[in-house]
Amino acid sequence: MIKNMDSKTEQKRLLDLIESRLKEIIPNMNPQEVYEPFRYIMAEGGKRIRPMLAVLTCGCICGVPEKAIDAACSIETMHNFTLVHDDIMDNSSIRRGKETVHKKWDESVGILTGDTMVGYSYRFLETYSNETSYREMIKALTTALIEVAEGQTYDMQFNTNKNVELKDYFLMIGKKTSALLQGSVLLGGNCAGASKEELTNLDEYAYNLGIAFQIQDDLLDITANQAKFGKQIGQDLIEGKKSYLILKARELAEDKNDIQLIEKFFNDNGLQKEEIQKMKSIYEKLNIFEIAQNEIEKYLEVATQSINKLKKNEYTEILLDLLKSLNKRNY
Amino acid sequence: MIKNMDSKTEQKRLLDLIESRLKEIIPNMNPQEVYEPFRYIMAEGGKRIRPMLAVLTCGCICGVPEKAIDAACSIETMHNFTLVHDDIMDNSSIRRGKETVHKKWDESVGILTGDTMVGYSYRFLETYSNETSYREMIKALTTALIEVAEGQTYDMQFNTNKNVELKDYFLMIGKKTSALLQGSVLLGGNCAGASKEELTNLDEYAYNLGIAFQIQDDLLDITANQAKFGKQIGQDLIEGKKSYLILKARELAEDKNDIQLIEKFFNDNGLQKEEIQKMKSIYEKLNIFEIAQNEIEKYLEVATQSINKLKKNEYTEILLDLLKSLNKRNY
Repeated sequence: MIKNMDSKTEQKRLLDLIESRLKEIIPNMNPQEVYEPFRYIMAEGGKRIRPMLAVLTCGCICGVPEKAIDAACSIETMHNFTLVHDDIMDNSSIRRGKETVHKKWDESVGILTGDTMVGYSYRFLETYSNETSYREMIKALTTALIEVAEGQTYDMQFNTNKNVELKDYFLMIGKKTSALLQGSVLLGGNCAGASKEELTNLDEYAYNLGIAFQIQDDLLDITANQAKFGKQIGQDLIEGKKSYLILKARELAEDKNDIQLIEKFFNDNGLQKEEIQKMKSIYEKLNIFEIAQNEIEKYLEVATQSINKLKKNEYTEILLDLLKSLNKRNY
Repeated sequence: MIKNMDSKTEQKRLLDLIESRLKEIIPNMNPQEVYEPFRYIMAEGGKRIRPMLAVLTCGCICGVPEKAIDAACSIETMHNFTLVHDDIMDNSSIRRGKETVHKKWDESVGILTGDTMVGYSYRFLETYSNETSYREMIKALTTALIEVAEGQTYDMQFNTNKNVELKDYFLMIGKKTSALLQGSVLLGGNCAGASKEELTNLDEYAYNLGIAFQIQDDLLDITANQAKFGKQIGQDLIEGKKSYLILKARELAEDKNDIQLIEKFFNDNGLQKEEIQKMKSIYEKLNIFEIAQNEIEKYLEVATQSINKLKKNEYTEILLDLLKSLNKRNY
């Protein structure tokens, strides 16, 4: 077990490696209408959680995280492709404080840049084409691609479906959020020559991490400190997003007035800004925040157990730290 | 060499195999918003030239075309994905006499169905994941995906670019038309365990076939018999499409009036219906149809030579027949 300070240094080192490899690996060539937006969306990508997972899990298994650097670029490219296409479908103008690709250029550029990026996700894996685990890596990337598209399809469908239930929610986020995290750890593990059992544990870790992360995201939308969060509090309620909170509240509500506001959310596909506080009170009355927090902890616990089944080293510790950082009460 | 009648029977047998495998291999599952349009676009797909190339080239090398049946489904899926996304970009309503996916459903369904189809193109190759040529197959599919997206990008760019030249045209069609044909024969050849030299010959065949096919398509647009062709004669001129014919005419025109109409085409991004006959006369005066036909024959000749370098069998004969069928004067 390495000290916390060393762990942070190692994470920073890996993040820098990822950033510089991404700059190097994305071609600067014609047609610029594809390669310029490709570089644009991939620049300054925030926490790089997926590529970090790829190198960290590789480090867990074989101790050498660098082996997974191109796999990390592959999964980060696949993730960013989904952002480019999702932004078109959601008609979003801003992403990470910058204009979205289809707004800065146009929709055709957005579609074609995304399509090209999928190609490069596969191409970046060619580094491993002589390894015996190559076919497993291709399979993991393909599964992530298909599942994330299915997940986005369910999410779009939820926009117009008044009868979404929690089981649909879990199916959707398992695909939309967890699938790419699972892809990340399976690529990282396979780079390191992980055994079938190790891959199962990594996969389980990533799946549960994704679910916990998504419920946390839903929770933060309304419980976060607005200044710190940087987004409108209760935005999900305004946009009509079928979050864990609203679906759980619908399950539990018994009071006629509460049910009325909850059903108004589903019928009108969202609430007015002035109604957010009232819904927050309903959530509090129904103990929704506590229930969501317990749900998060349940998934984090399964994720922790999955990591604990692996042989411990400095990288398993970092993966466990990641889980702990998600487990902070915000209300 | 088999008799013509037997060759037709064999082609029909292979086409039937492809059709029935496609019906079987495409999942019928949720979310239906993805899998229903996926099955819809893949149904009744015309001549199935790409999957036919995959099985025929496999037959050329090892004598057993059936080995490439899943590779054939893979490349046909990749081709149809491009149709779904291109139809969004071109805002097309009708494809093969049916509503396009994004019109029948919506644009988001079109984008997501296309993305999912790319995933299945790779998934269908998992059949070969234990073969030594698997990595070459993945590489060929990835190259086709990237090139076809680049080709469509150039094609979109041509819509607003008044300075397109023949060299740009050849770059564009090499990617937009030939890349998927090259992908087809490389998948088919690799299924059969083709040598590097055989793969080079197959690749050359497909590249040149694609170019010939595209120039032929440009030529037919204005020289075909309208009733037989089923499309408006001169549609490319109306739509402002930068075809081989107009680009060649621009190179050769010397008469002031001719140049004026040609430049009008480029400046107005197309001509009026009444101007088609005048442009056709210019083409005739400049001998454009003859020049285009010679160009087609030049590419077909290279393609023929590439096939002649392979060991002859019934399938090399079919590939040669395909070239001959393209080499018919229509004016």
